[in-house]
Amino acid sequence: MVEKKVSLDIKSLARDLRSGSRAALARAITLVESRRGDHQALARELVQMLLPDTGKAFRVGITGSPGVGKSTTIDALGTYLIEQGHKVAVLAVDPSSARSGGSILGDKTRMARLSASDDAFIRPSPSSGTLGGVAAKTREAMLLCEAAGFGVVLVETVGIGQSETAVCDMTDFFLALMLPGGGDELQGIKKGLVELADMIAINKADGDNLKRANITAADYRSALHILAPRSEHWHPPVETYSALTGDGIAKIWQKVLDHHKAMNASGDFAARRREQQVKWMWSMLEQRMLARLRSEASVRTRVRKIEAEVADGHLTPALAAEQILGLLQ
Amino acid sequence: MVEKKVSLDIKSLARDLRSGSRAALARAITLVESRRGDHQALARELVQMLLPDTGKAFRVGITGSPGVGKSTTIDALGTYLIEQGHKVAVLAVDPSSARSGGSILGDKTRMARLSASDDAFIRPSPSSGTLGGVAAKTREAMLLCEAAGFGVVLVETVGIGQSETAVCDMTDFFLALMLPGGGDELQGIKKGLVELADMIAINKADGDNLKRANITAADYRSALHILAPRSEHWHPPVETYSALTGDGIAKIWQKVLDHHKAMNASGDFAARRREQQVKWMWSMLEQRMLARLRSEASVRTRVRKIEAEVADGHLTPALAAEQILGLLQ
Repeated sequence: MVEKKVSLDIKSLARDLRSGSRAALARAITLVESRRGDHQALARELVQMLLPDTGKAFRVGITGSPGVGKSTTIDALGTYLIEQGHKVAVLAVDPSSARSGGSILGDKTRMARLSASDDAFIRPSPSSGTLGGVAAKTREAMLLCEAAGFGVVLVETVGIGQSETAVCDMTDFFLALMLPGGGDELQGIKKGLVELADMIAINKADGDNLKRANITAADYRSALHILAPRSEHWHPPVETYSALTGDGIAKIWQKVLDHHKAMNASGDFAARRREQQVKWMWSMLEQRMLARLRSEASVRTRVRKIEAEVADGHLTPALAAEQILGLLQ
Repeated sequence: MVEKKVSLDIKSLARDLRSGSRAALARAITLVESRRGDHQALARELVQMLLPDTGKAFRVGITGSPGVGKSTTIDALGTYLIEQGHKVAVLAVDPSSARSGGSILGDKTRMARLSASDDAFIRPSPSSGTLGGVAAKTREAMLLCEAAGFGVVLVETVGIGQSETAVCDMTDFFLALMLPGGGDELQGIKKGLVELADMIAINKADGDNLKRANITAADYRSALHILAPRSEHWHPPVETYSALTGDGIAKIWQKVLDHHKAMNASGDFAARRREQQVKWMWSMLEQRMLARLRSEASVRTRVRKIEAEVADGHLTPALAAEQILGLLQ
């Protein structure tokens, strides 16, 4: 819970956060995640206040199915970046964490080296609400991390469709982690992911797996070759690495830097950030409107009934929308 | 324009349409496309009235870049279906038609055989408004065609991202048309499309192109092989055909039937339709809400200003959403 004292003194919280206080950062994120109306109003004020200090970090989204070694990869990459002089924040979008009763990042021991560093800040996924709500809170947490001086923000997500899109929409570079496979196993690459990924990195390229990893990389390369790239200024590379040995970790980061340079030179970088911000605004507006539909029990029941009639084909979507609009007025 | 007489007598319009009158169908679609508030209210009533008579058609979306031979393909496929005893409606979603000053289907001579048949009904894309608006009107036109006894509805779209998603969201089978290519030309396949397509059909597999078409098909097959299919009950086939000679047209339709059978057996068919309807309802609600933001000039100006501040990074999306919400109340 956020204490009364803190709630009342947004300005000093902002000052402490700007000076790099991890405690202040943690409190600010808790404020952003609070569902209380007064807290939310204060959180909006706080983020607005800190807005001039945001936007300077490398924002990197990282996705991969369970078992691909996401935590060890983030541990290795984060540690490498700290050695390079960066301060690294790790956030997560996992809308299932509310249901599973814990966050994917809840167990910090899974990022042993990183969590021991003073230059790292690890925060589990907000564990309440819809994907839209979870993503919105993570986005604001990202801004707070930037204002607190973190130059790299890694946003982890589970390999599930919509949450990947949400993370892609808040980051500059989207990295998809894969495992070496053979034959049919290769089918594991999800179509939506190919569209989002700025890079595919194949983990566990070590020991006996090295050869298989290289074959897998070649297969992905030829599959990607057939698809038109998202930007004409960037063709998503496919690389192998090992989170265990650290081989290839530096290469991954070099690709992030190359991408940043190419996107900046072409103007795509600024354009993408602008688009993301406007899109975010509209999606927040939508969420606020939908929240009003859910806030009153009587309205909620009525909406659910209308929705069922539409699904069953008894009511046209147009008339249903009209009826729901009537409930809002 | 819709005449006063028609506007006032929705019941007789519905009766005429149900009996298969093409004139009534055309008038009903014009009513649906009208931007007048009273027409829109009548259109909602009409579609609701006809709802029990809808849902029975094969709904097939067809996409392809300019030059791929979409019109000749639809002409050949539609003619084949009419020979098989079907009544065929052809609709289109082309949000650019308002800008380009004409619809892609405006020139019916491009579907010479089909437009000469009494069992075909060809309607150009609604040419006003946003993609959401155009798609909503096409969806309702589709329902009207079904109520008028058309057993196949082909919905054509241009090969542009969002309009393909819109058409995919209103159809049961999504067909992507391609051209034979070689080497780099193959990159033409768009990533988003791969995710949507239930089948890829390569046109112009005739004469000198036959060999190239077969190679292209093999390349696409191996690229698709690496991707996880949208449904576990359907792996999108890649086939060649010639709209010119008619070779392979029957095979395309057989795949539509196979897909229909597989989706029905697994329950995916009904589930997809239900989902589509509910999704449509929410998107109509969103459009109605956004329409309110655009209807008043003073509000519109204010929203544009807020949007610009967000894009420039001077205002957080959360505060912006709050401000717009305030304008709505």
